[in-house]
Amino acid sequence: MSETITCRAAIAWKAGEPLSIEEVQVAPPKAGEVRVKIVATGVCHTDAFTLSGDDPEGIFPAILGHEGGGIVESVGEGVTSVKVGDHVIPLYTAECGKCKFCLSGKTNLCQAVRETQGKGLMPDGTSRFSQNGKPIFHYMGCSTFSEYTVLPEISLAKVNPEAPLEEVCLLGCGVTTGMGAVMNTAKVEEGATVAIFGLGGIGLSAVIGATMAKASRIIAIDINESKFDLAKQLGATDCINPKDYDKPIQEVIVELTDGGVDYSFECIGNVDVMRSALECCHKGWGESVIIGVAGAGQEISTRPFQLVTGRVWKGSAFGGVKGRSELPDYVERYLAGEFKLSDFITHTMPLDDVNEAFHLMHEGKSIRTVLHY
Amino acid sequence: MSETITCRAAIAWKAGEPLSIEEVQVAPPKAGEVRVKIVATGVCHTDAFTLSGDDPEGIFPAILGHEGGGIVESVGEGVTSVKVGDHVIPLYTAECGKCKFCLSGKTNLCQAVRETQGKGLMPDGTSRFSQNGKPIFHYMGCSTFSEYTVLPEISLAKVNPEAPLEEVCLLGCGVTTGMGAVMNTAKVEEGATVAIFGLGGIGLSAVIGATMAKASRIIAIDINESKFDLAKQLGATDCINPKDYDKPIQEVIVELTDGGVDYSFECIGNVDVMRSALECCHKGWGESVIIGVAGAGQEISTRPFQLVTGRVWKGSAFGGVKGRSELPDYVERYLAGEFKLSDFITHTMPLDDVNEAFHLMHEGKSIRTVLHY
Repeated sequence: MSETITCRAAIAWKAGEPLSIEEVQVAPPKAGEVRVKIVATGVCHTDAFTLSGDDPEGIFPAILGHEGGGIVESVGEGVTSVKVGDHVIPLYTAECGKCKFCLSGKTNLCQAVRETQGKGLMPDGTSRFSQNGKPIFHYMGCSTFSEYTVLPEISLAKVNPEAPLEEVCLLGCGVTTGMGAVMNTAKVEEGATVAIFGLGGIGLSAVIGATMAKASRIIAIDINESKFDLAKQLGATDCINPKDYDKPIQEVIVELTDGGVDYSFECIGNVDVMRSALECCHKGWGESVIIGVAGAGQEISTRPFQLVTGRVWKGSAFGGVKGRSELPDYVERYLAGEFKLSDFITHTMPLDDVNEAFHLMHEGKSIRTVLHY
Repeated sequence: MSETITCRAAIAWKAGEPLSIEEVQVAPPKAGEVRVKIVATGVCHTDAFTLSGDDPEGIFPAILGHEGGGIVESVGEGVTSVKVGDHVIPLYTAECGKCKFCLSGKTNLCQAVRETQGKGLMPDGTSRFSQNGKPIFHYMGCSTFSEYTVLPEISLAKVNPEAPLEEVCLLGCGVTTGMGAVMNTAKVEEGATVAIFGLGGIGLSAVIGATMAKASRIIAIDINESKFDLAKQLGATDCINPKDYDKPIQEVIVELTDGGVDYSFECIGNVDVMRSALECCHKGWGESVIIGVAGAGQEISTRPFQLVTGRVWKGSAFGGVKGRSELPDYVERYLAGEFKLSDFITHTMPLDDVNEAFHLMHEGKSIRTVLHY
């Protein structure tokens, strides 16, 4: 049985304050749990959202981070699906394979550890993180802003060890979310027309997904034109700035596409943009997928006529991808050269500079910063 | 070439006024058109909606009615798909087989005659109805409240002449809309759980559709409990009156079904009920289909979280059924005894009593009144 490890982690003591790099104690994994040495982690907007205090589920003090890659350091009793030395990607959406959700075959939203995870705890209702005996909360079941972390076995995707964890860590959240929304949730088919709203990491990943799906037209929409070069490089056929038009962007897109697009994706979390994304879809069959997370209490609206005349409104979480059974294949496709992750990594830095990574993101200067441990 | 016929019809001279039974002239069919002797027609809420003046597309004077059955009296030049004597059901949603919509394979919303139909005219931009030389408008491309009417060839479903037109006329709108929403749009599968909001003709037809689809649980919701007996007779397993609860009906249904239903259908046209219908769906996969038509300018709303966590919001028009290629099969299934239409027909009367039929509907005393000519 392994022992408690003392290591460095970025602690979020309070909402709205910078993270603090300090030593923490990481308890050994209990039954069904795995302790992972994190090798690299992306810094995602969701981390910033929780740190800001706007996330109603945010709990402090906590160790943030949920887009990591690591190596199994030790396993608890009964763990069979991974062993020491395996390369893994932590999953904020587990896959138990046994709950009503997993068994439905219709969703990736396994609920096995949902309740405790939402409270910042492991499934037994306690935390593995502490500092001088005082517990610190987990975050999204991952807490990758720590040199070591503990997860349930069912929250780990075992991936090909040939893949560099400094890159495939991005498949732990943003890139899979965008690509999966296109390929898994919407199932965009060859020749389809697509509109993608918002060109952050998720939107750009959706562009890649649409390119991989061989969409005939990929319209990328953002008010920050500095994103357009990369969007085009990744496969966008049209880049549009809504500020260049004095009518609603959905009307612009409907005109541009002779009636609207086959699929649209909202990758921002803005409820007004969600409406535009729905309404730029083609009558009769257009489907709009919400990926972005809106602020607490905000609502989407439209005239029901939009739906009665054939448009479909849906959403996607983690791209509809089942973490343990499907994510390893994303890593294989990456290794096969079907898509690149380096395009997303605009900055790399050590864990010590995590606050700088948040700063760059707030300023819109980074797509993804990856922290190397 | 046939000649102009003078016959009796119910004319809507103005919004808000009773229909007037008068003689009208019905011109012969032009190229691609067909003149039909109407044998029977249902009276639908949509007729009442237009007559009320609330329908922003309503045009007067017009001959209403869109749920009819008839016999081909004469055909215009080039008509090949029907001949004199054929039994037909008029279609307010044509099926040309050639437009972008028909060719998509994804929708029944053929647009071939949509524009002129919306203006109360035949595809050449004129009307076949007149009275003493003054034109009277068509309605929904059907105008079945007339002993004779003219339609484009592509707006007629040719059906088995063994089927009594006094019953299968109901397949021209309400019954197909409800059954089709369940079987075509949602594709409810055996064993699924279903909630149906509103037990008018469409809601009851949705109950039939769910029964035919072998849904395991069919929850019927209405504030008028007098509908419950028939709903149960048609296959509803639970009948619920929202007034019996002091919490939102979606919460009641979520509790009753251990998380929500697999499919829900809004058959009223009330935007608040549309929200309840979405939110009573199961996380991860529940789909809600809007069938009811809301008032002009009204909007639906929900938190986007409802969609991001896997619910799907869609709509259905004419049950997603393609009139010429799929409606004849509904008639065959009726003839094979898979469902009954007599349950819906609470009243029959001659065309002269059409205003009484509207009155019964307003009072909630009829499901369908069928006018016999």
